[in-house]
Amino acid sequence: MKQAALLAQLRDIVGAAHVLTDGDLSAYEQDWRKRVHGKALAVVRPGSTQEVAAVVKACAAAHVSIVPQGGNTGLSVGSTPDTSGEQIVLNLQRMHAVRQLDADNLTITVEAGMVLQTLQETAAQAGFLFPLSLAAEGSCTIGGNLGTNAGGTQVLRYGNTRELCLGLEVVTPQGEIWDGLSGLRKDNTGYDLRDLFIGSEGSLGIITAATMKLFPQPAAQLTAFAAVPSMEAAVRLLGLAHRHLAAGLTGFEVMGKFALSLVVKHMPQLRVPFADMADAPYCVLLENSDSESETHARARFEHLLELALEDGCVLDAVVAENMAQAHELWHIRESIPLAQAEEGLNIKHDISIQASRIPAFVAHTDALLQRAIPGVRLVNFGHLGDGNLHYNVQVPEGQDGKVFLQEKEDMVNTLVYDAVAQFGGSFSAEHGVGALKADKLVHYKSPVALQMMRAIKQALDPQGIMNPGCILQR
Amino acid sequence: MKQAALLAQLRDIVGAAHVLTDGDLSAYEQDWRKRVHGKALAVVRPGSTQEVAAVVKACAAAHVSIVPQGGNTGLSVGSTPDTSGEQIVLNLQRMHAVRQLDADNLTITVEAGMVLQTLQETAAQAGFLFPLSLAAEGSCTIGGNLGTNAGGTQVLRYGNTRELCLGLEVVTPQGEIWDGLSGLRKDNTGYDLRDLFIGSEGSLGIITAATMKLFPQPAAQLTAFAAVPSMEAAVRLLGLAHRHLAAGLTGFEVMGKFALSLVVKHMPQLRVPFADMADAPYCVLLENSDSESETHARARFEHLLELALEDGCVLDAVVAENMAQAHELWHIRESIPLAQAEEGLNIKHDISIQASRIPAFVAHTDALLQRAIPGVRLVNFGHLGDGNLHYNVQVPEGQDGKVFLQEKEDMVNTLVYDAVAQFGGSFSAEHGVGALKADKLVHYKSPVALQMMRAIKQALDPQGIMNPGCILQR
Repeated sequence: MKQAALLAQLRDIVGAAHVLTDGDLSAYEQDWRKRVHGKALAVVRPGSTQEVAAVVKACAAAHVSIVPQGGNTGLSVGSTPDTSGEQIVLNLQRMHAVRQLDADNLTITVEAGMVLQTLQETAAQAGFLFPLSLAAEGSCTIGGNLGTNAGGTQVLRYGNTRELCLGLEVVTPQGEIWDGLSGLRKDNTGYDLRDLFIGSEGSLGIITAATMKLFPQPAAQLTAFAAVPSMEAAVRLLGLAHRHLAAGLTGFEVMGKFALSLVVKHMPQLRVPFADMADAPYCVLLENSDSESETHARARFEHLLELALEDGCVLDAVVAENMAQAHELWHIRESIPLAQAEEGLNIKHDISIQASRIPAFVAHTDALLQRAIPGVRLVNFGHLGDGNLHYNVQVPEGQDGKVFLQEKEDMVNTLVYDAVAQFGGSFSAEHGVGALKADKLVHYKSPVALQMMRAIKQALDPQGIMNPGCILQR
Repeated sequence: MKQAALLAQLRDIVGAAHVLTDGDLSAYEQDWRKRVHGKALAVVRPGSTQEVAAVVKACAAAHVSIVPQGGNTGLSVGSTPDTSGEQIVLNLQRMHAVRQLDADNLTITVEAGMVLQTLQETAAQAGFLFPLSLAAEGSCTIGGNLGTNAGGTQVLRYGNTRELCLGLEVVTPQGEIWDGLSGLRKDNTGYDLRDLFIGSEGSLGIITAATMKLFPQPAAQLTAFAAVPSMEAAVRLLGLAHRHLAAGLTGFEVMGKFALSLVVKHMPQLRVPFADMADAPYCVLLENSDSESETHARARFEHLLELALEDGCVLDAVVAENMAQAHELWHIRESIPLAQAEEGLNIKHDISIQASRIPAFVAHTDALLQRAIPGVRLVNFGHLGDGNLHYNVQVPEGQDGKVFLQEKEDMVNTLVYDAVAQFGGSFSAEHGVGALKADKLVHYKSPVALQMMRAIKQALDPQGIMNPGCILQR
């Protein structure tokens, strides 16, 4: 009865067509990897910030909790309702307008529901680069990117989503609108509320719009693919690349031999360079963005690779001759998750370690896993430039995937995350905590930090209605 | 009596030599600009994080409030005790060790009391750049830079202090140690406590150490000085420079004609280019850092300036022939505050506006001030690349400075800050709020933001002992 009254109120606010309660709502109610299936009281799709505020006020008055949602492409179950049938999914996809593009200030203000790719394209049409780039860019929204502080492939040059944002508009858990939109690059007037909301995964309020940085488009972008003799060599190459390309270095991805072999096996149409090179346990993909010209970019890249060959940290390398070849090389890197899925079930990790400690971490953890699970297959790849590895564990050949996961997943996670902690790393580099890893947060985060986080949650959302169970356990 | 007991406890913790109660303590008790003179119960100089924690616990138990202090060079009275004689100044200058320099990870971990210039030099000796650079660098500490999120001259390329920091060690208002030191570039495990402490000016806890980013040293750095026909032209030049130098653009400072005339008048030994050019109301100083060579840097710079001359946004320009000349050009820019002081009293502002709106803001506010104060002299200069102006008001010629300030300072501040607010800017771009501008925060910040700030302060420092009256009014 109380629920019916709330639904009527919500229909009044956003219009009956935008309060979904019937039919197939699985796109909203289950997570991207289809591991968690929730049930919402309703999916509400407001069309304006005022409507979001009114929805939150109505829910707060009715003591009904809210799960904010963008493209619902997150990998940590941070935007999926629980199974109670009592939560409101507040989906922001209808709010996708460009509010302002300020060319002289190099900023763009957009609503939270804008799809990342649309934002990239809007920037490009105006002659600018919006550098955030990640696998889900065709479906994820900038609001979700902000909520999870998404990373991606250009972080080593442009930073995470956090570093790309200058200001936010937020609806608080009380249904107040905070207009923190700002195109200012310097503003030291009080506590940094912006960065508190960024990465809070909808648990402190709802991001409804944001002012993001734009960059000049590079004149040329070149891609190279290099075979390296060890992870140590890959880290040495990273140092050389920083020194010789400086801010031109916009991508530095590492791929283990087994990860590449899965691409060779399942995507035979892709030509993987150095796939047969026995002494190259890893390959590295480098991207060099140049503000001058392609000729200049190529000369700088070739100079770097010559130095690296001399040093021995590179065994062999190719530089893409044109954009089509560059796309092919990136396509190899981006195909690894799909090749993994083709091969069968696997256990994914999204970890980060200081670059300097990655070789020791990998040697240590590879050995532990080999001892614990004879025949284990490690799909190790990721954004080495940021110290971020997707250190995944593929089911051993011939074993039943479901049985393996049931028996080993917890043990593997504990082994990997314990090693990460031992090396001073993070168990969630770019995917966030969500509901999936809330237990890991309690285990691996310092008690002092946890206590401060709980105090902040309690201070801003005393009723506990914003995405309960996400980041902090209930 | 209770105070005597606390002092005895503090002497036990840090040693009697480091609890200062007698003699001339003005270096600790008055602010940098000598406008505010406080009186502390004692100045305590702990030598380790553990000592800081013990001092805080003792003060918390005695309900005595703490003013954290680094080099005490702040411009907003954020590290000066009140006049009660009941506060503890907790000075961190004895904690200045390098904890770790990680060349492969491009990070350095240092204690909060390290002087900024020492940090720059430590980085340089290891072959790296630590890019934070500002006038007080010989005395200010990195802890103070973090507490105030200091800006400086290279923000447009490297960001504010916030963007240079990867992790913090903090002593909480309860005297707990939070070890949030981290060399990770990606870590999405819960709320962003780091950025909450950065810029909180010691009002939420005490930063005791930090992990900061290092960068490769540029191969060459060139400086140019350009005369421009208007502020609009300066903004157009900024856009051109972004497009053609990209990340090479590491400095973009604007200087008004009157500001430069004060340098000519009071520092006759400095040769100011274009000082007599009648049609150039502003000059711009540009810095170009190059990862390749000086020859390359010069070619790029000359290309840019040719385009700018063609465009008309530059009337004339010189590029420094060598480092000595480059220092001379920077010295002109850096001499403006001193030349101002030589000329007499003045009212300082540290504001930011979107670059695109600065020409309109300046035209609007110049006119308002001229109307309000016939003969007013505007010393307008600053980091245009970040939208940050030091828009200062010099006492009209022939008037008594003290009388002018007494009669006009409030009116001038209100006029300028109202205009800043109207143009969507900030009344404190890089100097912070401190006690000096806490009333401005209440006036110009959104009530929703203020409410959240107060809730956070209450949540983390319920006793209210950390730097009371700084940022948030008591």
